[in-house]
Amino acid sequence: MKWKRSERLVDMTRHLLENPHSLIPLTFFSERHHAAKSSISEDLVIIKETFEESGTGRLVTVSGAAGGVKYIPEVTETEVREVMALIKENLGRSDRLLPGGYLYMTDFLGNPKIMDRVGKVFASAFADANIEVIMTVATKGIPIANAIARHLNVPVVIVRRDSKVTEGSTVSINYVSGSTRRIQTMVLSKRSMKSGQRVLITDDFMKAGGTMAGMKNLLEEFDCELAGAAVLVEAEHTEEVLVDNYLSLVKLRTMNEKDRTIELEEGNYFTKGGKTQ
Amino acid sequence: MKWKRSERLVDMTRHLLENPHSLIPLTFFSERHHAAKSSISEDLVIIKETFEESGTGRLVTVSGAAGGVKYIPEVTETEVREVMALIKENLGRSDRLLPGGYLYMTDFLGNPKIMDRVGKVFASAFADANIEVIMTVATKGIPIANAIARHLNVPVVIVRRDSKVTEGSTVSINYVSGSTRRIQTMVLSKRSMKSGQRVLITDDFMKAGGTMAGMKNLLEEFDCELAGAAVLVEAEHTEEVLVDNYLSLVKLRTMNEKDRTIELEEGNYFTKGGKTQ
Repeated sequence: MKWKRSERLVDMTRHLLENPHSLIPLTFFSERHHAAKSSISEDLVIIKETFEESGTGRLVTVSGAAGGVKYIPEVTETEVREVMALIKENLGRSDRLLPGGYLYMTDFLGNPKIMDRVGKVFASAFADANIEVIMTVATKGIPIANAIARHLNVPVVIVRRDSKVTEGSTVSINYVSGSTRRIQTMVLSKRSMKSGQRVLITDDFMKAGGTMAGMKNLLEEFDCELAGAAVLVEAEHTEEVLVDNYLSLVKLRTMNEKDRTIELEEGNYFTKGGKTQ
Repeated sequence: MKWKRSERLVDMTRHLLENPHSLIPLTFFSERHHAAKSSISEDLVIIKETFEESGTGRLVTVSGAAGGVKYIPEVTETEVREVMALIKENLGRSDRLLPGGYLYMTDFLGNPKIMDRVGKVFASAFADANIEVIMTVATKGIPIANAIARHLNVPVVIVRRDSKVTEGSTVSINYVSGSTRRIQTMVLSKRSMKSGQRVLITDDFMKAGGTMAGMKNLLEEFDCELAGAAVLVEAEHTEEVLVDNYLSLVKLRTMNEKDRTIELEEGNYFTKGGKTQ
């Protein structure tokens, strides 16, 4: 079947969006669409310009025999501000206050559209950081990790609190929880990572950063490298933060159980140099 | 800015793919692209035909004042067979055999591209089932639940084994594990679901179906309706299966620890009427 340009544009756009951070040889498209490479190159210029205009991301062309085109998901500053506003508005509702000063976020983390946008923001921030693995701790960090991973096209590894028979041999560490100062355990399957891999750690909530610091220690056990840290919500804290470089989307300033008020503000994303298009 | 047809096609394709199962009014596109509705309708015909030709899914047009266009992700039979073959090939490697006759699947579940394809297959199967919620049990089912949810545009709820302070008030049930006959507990936040919602339950692995049956019981506590069940791998079992209608992608026939062999075959997807394009 011979494809028209209009059909090629639709199909190539789909293929690029479904395969972020993957180098696609031009021959893939020219064979699939029975079109000359010169036509494919012209199509790619149209897609590239439209993606840039709409704030979807970059198309990077690599020339030469091993060349091709790669779609890098990116977000605009406006999109980041919109996502921040959405989180602030949604998590700021007073019925999210739980006894003991906890914030109910489970439904928010279960919303696939919001998670997709959050994932794309962090994937954009770390687009050039050569991330090879996303690491999180079960359970609430998983949707964020999955969303970032899809946009960066890298695997997710999930740290557990206890050892499971289905994980095979594991590496286990003890660490001190930042806020409660209790000793806790983290367990990760030995097969999860290879030494030398660059890892982005992520979680839904960070106070003093004990969990993040625990993941950092675990990385050392695997001879892996901390390439970045991403948290959805960071909380105001008086203790020393146990991880230095992290990006957050919002910051929880105060929660007042008596007045039923939650005060949220923008996180450190922009001040810490979170990239946008 | 005035958009050319070629640019509109790229941008509309992106917007539709990013918003599955969402009704988008034609005025959204005509305003965004400064184009007449008749031009937008012509664009949609091209996208619709290309999506059908490439096995991406359906575009459904709803006419009238509250009308618009909706993208329904669907897969072809070929795609389902490819996904099944991929799972069989990958999970059939002998180094996945763990002591005690368990199968190591964690890395497979951490692969975002594979999970995306698995999610789309199940979203396609249940595209017309009016699913309102995807439910799974922590931890290994979560990536599958997230992937299905993204393609169906519905929230995920995660059942836990124990109660967490960040979940607020919870509903807890006891159930009998299918294979070990042990009493186990399932906990779900009270705010997770509204009564009457139609729920798709999913998990990575099912033997006698105790976990699935447990989720079914939990649905009853919430006055919710079981709308379907989806499992990645079902295992051969001699006991009665505790859930009747489920779709599986592959079936684990035998695992032999001595010979280090794993035998997998296609699941019941096609025999149970799993829909394709």
